[in-house]
Amino acid sequence: MTSGGDAAGMNPAIKCTVDYSRMLGYKPYLVHNGLRGLIDDNIEEAKSSDVSGILHRGGTILRSSRSKRFFEYEHRQQAYENLQKHGISKLIVIGGDGSFRALNQFYSDFKVPFAGIPATIDNDIPGTDYCLGVDTALNMIRQNVDSIRDTASSFSRAFVIETMGRHCGYLAMASAVTSGAEVCLVPELEYDLEAIQKRLQKDIDNGRQFLIAIVAEGCQMGDYLTRWIKDKLKMDARLTILGHIQRGGSPTVRDRLMAFKFGIAAVDSLHRGETNKIMVYKSGSYSTVPIHELAGQTAGIDPVLVEICKPLCR
Amino acid sequence: MTSGGDAAGMNPAIKCTVDYSRMLGYKPYLVHNGLRGLIDDNIEEAKSSDVSGILHRGGTILRSSRSKRFFEYEHRQQAYENLQKHGISKLIVIGGDGSFRALNQFYSDFKVPFAGIPATIDNDIPGTDYCLGVDTALNMIRQNVDSIRDTASSFSRAFVIETMGRHCGYLAMASAVTSGAEVCLVPELEYDLEAIQKRLQKDIDNGRQFLIAIVAEGCQMGDYLTRWIKDKLKMDARLTILGHIQRGGSPTVRDRLMAFKFGIAAVDSLHRGETNKIMVYKSGSYSTVPIHELAGQTAGIDPVLVEICKPLCR
Amino acid sequence: MTSGGDAAGMNPAIKCTVDYSRMLGYKPYLVHNGLRGLIDDNIEEAKSSDVSGILHRGGTILRSSRSKRFFEYEHRQQAYENLQKHGISKLIVIGGDGSFRALNQFYSDFKVPFAGIPATIDNDIPGTDYCLGVDTALNMIRQNVDSIRDTASSFSRAFVIETMGRHCGYLAMASAVTSGAEVCLVPELEYDLEAIQKRLQKDIDNGRQFLIAIVAEGCQMGDYLTRWIKDKLKMDARLTILGHIQRGGSPTVRDRLMAFKFGIAAVDSLHRGETNKIMVYKSGSYSTVPIHELAGQTAGIDPVLVEICKPLCR
Amino acid sequence: MTSGGDAAGMNPAIKCTVDYSRMLGYKPYLVHNGLRGLIDDNIEEAKSSDVSGILHRGGTILRSSRSKRFFEYEHRQQAYENLQKHGISKLIVIGGDGSFRALNQFYSDFKVPFAGIPATIDNDIPGTDYCLGVDTALNMIRQNVDSIRDTASSFSRAFVIETMGRHCGYLAMASAVTSGAEVCLVPELEYDLEAIQKRLQKDIDNGRQFLIAIVAEGCQMGDYLTRWIKDKLKMDARLTILGHIQRGGSPTVRDRLMAFKFGIAAVDSLHRGETNKIMVYKSGSYSTVPIHELAGQTAGIDPVLVEICKPLCR
Repeated sequence: MTSGGDAAGMNPAIKCTVDYSRMLGYKPYLVHNGLRGLIDDNIEEAKSSDVSGILHRGGTILRSSRSKRFFEYEHRQQAYENLQKHGISKLIVIGGDGSFRALNQFYSDFKVPFAGIPATIDNDIPGTDYCLGVDTALNMIRQNVDSIRDTASSFSRAFVIETMGRHCGYLAMASAVTSGAEVCLVPELEYDLEAIQKRLQKDIDNGRQFLIAIVAEGCQMGDYLTRWIKDKLKMDARLTILGHIQRGGSPTVRDRLMAFKFGIAAVDSLHRGETNKIMVYKSGSYSTVPIHELAGQTAGIDPVLVEICKPLCR
Repeated sequence: MTSGGDAAGMNPAIKCTVDYSRMLGYKPYLVHNGLRGLIDDNIEEAKSSDVSGILHRGGTILRSSRSKRFFEYEHRQQAYENLQKHGISKLIVIGGDGSFRALNQFYSDFKVPFAGIPATIDNDIPGTDYCLGVDTALNMIRQNVDSIRDTASSFSRAFVIETMGRHCGYLAMASAVTSGAEVCLVPELEYDLEAIQKRLQKDIDNGRQFLIAIVAEGCQMGDYLTRWIKDKLKMDARLTILGHIQRGGSPTVRDRLMAFKFGIAAVDSLHRGETNKIMVYKSGSYSTVPIHELAGQTAGIDPVLVEICKPLCR
Repeated sequence: MTSGGDAAGMNPAIKCTVDYSRMLGYKPYLVHNGLRGLIDDNIEEAKSSDVSGILHRGGTILRSSRSKRFFEYEHRQQAYENLQKHGISKLIVIGGDGSFRALNQFYSDFKVPFAGIPATIDNDIPGTDYCLGVDTALNMIRQNVDSIRDTASSFSRAFVIETMGRHCGYLAMASAVTSGAEVCLVPELEYDLEAIQKRLQKDIDNGRQFLIAIVAEGCQMGDYLTRWIKDKLKMDARLTILGHIQRGGSPTVRDRLMAFKFGIAAVDSLHRGETNKIMVYKSGSYSTVPIHELAGQTAGIDPVLVEICKPLCR
Repeated sequence: MTSGGDAAGMNPAIKCTVDYSRMLGYKPYLVHNGLRGLIDDNIEEAKSSDVSGILHRGGTILRSSRSKRFFEYEHRQQAYENLQKHGISKLIVIGGDGSFRALNQFYSDFKVPFAGIPATIDNDIPGTDYCLGVDTALNMIRQNVDSIRDTASSFSRAFVIETMGRHCGYLAMASAVTSGAEVCLVPELEYDLEAIQKRLQKDIDNGRQFLIAIVAEGCQMGDYLTRWIKDKLKMDARLTILGHIQRGGSPTVRDRLMAFKFGIAAVDSLHRGETNKIMVYKSGSYSTVPIHELAGQTAGIDPVLVEICKPLCR
């Protein structure tokens, strides 16, 4: 099942877990509509045709949802009865840490083991350096920033571009660095607008004709920075909120490869008799981490990227 | 020179007019920064290297601008003196009808003949069915709408997508039809929200899980429609404003081909001794129209497209 | 039904004809596998779900085929009996002129009226300036030529690129012009290798470091020209045959719009009681032409494009 | 300087090394045309404008070359004298292991320290899991394979697709797995055509209508396999050689990020006073390896990928 915000790479992960678990002798099922589908019994045995031709499709064919009902015991019990009815004894969930915690609670109640595959474009799941969907999101952003750069450079204009990322500025930082943006504001890094003003004014005096600033949604600085540029730098400025454009698109090769590796690892984890493990990619190697170890942790950002990004905050 | 809002296809048009005018024995110059550059003498002879490798680049290498100073006689006189100094006797301007009217005034003052090449992604220049930049803009929109559709279909959600187009709904209409949107609101067509509600509610009752609505900027309905969907259809809804993403991107083959045809026609028009002509593509053939014939006209939209679009407004 | 080589734009045309014919009160059917499916009764009533979500997909969901059996009366009689059985009285075929002639013969035999929608990336169907699939093919070629240009310019190297087009050089010509190629060889235009050699040698002496030549498949000059460049110009040269890459890809907006217009026109033609008409786009307007008028004609190429292309042949 | 076959990611690496070395107080120079430029003194101080706006461009703005002259002492001496003249005391080379070995020899002769940044789409440089250009190449292949799949599925046809990779099947393996190919032949893995035939025949008997086979250039099996499919499986089959299409294209975000990390590491390596070190990314961390340690090694392929790929070889 897939749960939480959708991300490119979910479909390849679905295909891989279905194919590989069947290869190991299991009988895989598909849960539609996430946690809600678990409660409402949108569950059916996986047919080959369900997962053929889905590798290159964005989003999730299983659909996702957020479900408040799952917080209540009676609905979790309903979910458990549905699983019992189908003879389903193990779960694989592709989603974010909210979904993992929900299934952890479900395990406490009914002892249904599960394995979690991290997927969210925000790249903010603790314990793993990579979540499915991030590479595709970054490349969608890249195409749009490249397009905006065409128009910015044609018109002596500043563009403020807001990426997704409520608590985590990874998308904004990686996009700013790789698109050559002049400014980057993210929740993790302090910024010094006065210093930025001095730096940019000097550039403008030296002939700079346009500029690109990338801000993470979580900073809530898009509108302010746009007006600030007009006021302080006397430059025409526009705000572009990329929004849900970032979520979709055919998964990149990297997201497909990661989906295969996480998918195989998740099936193997359950096959070995483990439970409540999250698949992680940390410092270049794949492993599994018990969900309780992630509690209270926050996702860290690659320190090299942070260093490269710092000059863009001041 | 390029003038007004930038559009994909301007660079191929620049290359073509430079190369072709030189082939006919002229000595081409480049005016940088649009009308402002005419006043400030940002003018230089065109070198081969200036226009090589620009066919595939979005925006305009000559940069564009809007200039209020050009409304004043003294600045136009300055512009005229600049042209005199360089020995420039004819102008080709790639831009919108505001720029054409400005050069028409310039002709009244100083008798400098010009030819105009229509370029604007809004497709709202009277007299021509096609303006440079439209096809590239439509395909940029397509890619983003396809991406949003991935996420909409994964999450039982409505998306309202706002395209550019202040007075002209062409981009919105063509995008709605070709992306299979359920709703399309444009300034040209009356819409009936009550009828739309009934139609969509019936679809939802029959199992529709997501929907896409495309609205033209000029309707100013983006915010309203998003709330309306939440209220009336009880569906989670999000607004995406595509904004300047639509302007950029490598020109499509169609925009490059049209740029060549308009470019050759413009040089030929001046070569034949004509003046104040706008290059147009009308009912499938290329011709030139005196600018005064366009006064007071508004751009018409393909009636077949309008017919296909009507069911999306009610 | 779709027939002959597949082309982007077939799916939007299928969707449009199904939706629009149903709107007029007809009961549409889908013939799978082209002419072969007509004989083998791969025919079923069109459901809404069959044509939803197909607008953005390349190729044809109905699959296509070439069938020699259809040349024989007995198999055509079988096809006729199949249609009778389903109560099908009119046909719409999306394909090339071979398919149109086959259905013309079928009409002679059994008086089943049909309408033809031109679709082939070669753009070689007589009577129409545009065939579905051409714009998408051109943009697929563009992306790949742009990519090859990166590597050519990085390495002082010549690239010979072969496009599809057995008898018609349209793809090669439009690609050469819009990608700034230095050489273009097509079946329609005479070329003068000696003149080309002199021209390129002069460019190389003036500093040219790389070159791109585009040749149509029908010239059978790919291998020869590659060796010729090595021999005569002493430049490292490589041949790239684009092949079937050109056929696929999500249909561009232009191909989707044309598909809608052709689709509506085809349904309208049959609805008016016409038969054996081909939908054409000629000099900017849409009309229908009786198939017998196309006999013996060959497709003409836009004379402006030919003029722009001529300097690349000598 | 860049040397050897060009790869996407070279331009971001150039930009990063220039900017970062200047930040540390160095005066960076650009060597044009690779080793040949070193001999012919195509060397000039790097200006800011040389490296602005190059992040998103494929290939290398410095051009590359292969030079046999560099094998001879007298030409290396010439190169040394050129460097002396400019006051250049350290070199950064972006390229493959042939280039690294050449500079190692150069160091033996004249004690000019260098740092090497691995860049080649073949991903076959020993000691590192990643070379610049690989991710972009994989995504170019993906787009073309997705396009070919459209046409294969529309026409009941097999496609054999040949990727680059003389000794290393990485591109073919990663592409086969992530595109859902049915067959993959690479130099590293034994294949069993008889087993493949049985497996595919069974699939065809169960309704499979098309198939995709991906083969690495180094196997030299493209032609053979295409005929083999026609003979043994009685399926229409076509060969597509992707060729140099794979090299170009705007660098993906991953290639840009890796370019920054390798670039910073290379400058740091020289800054620390090291010499003859190659930047590597191994098991998820970045480090430097003395070039002599790489002698005799061959590049290993990710064992998980190999496992996933094995079922496609038999």
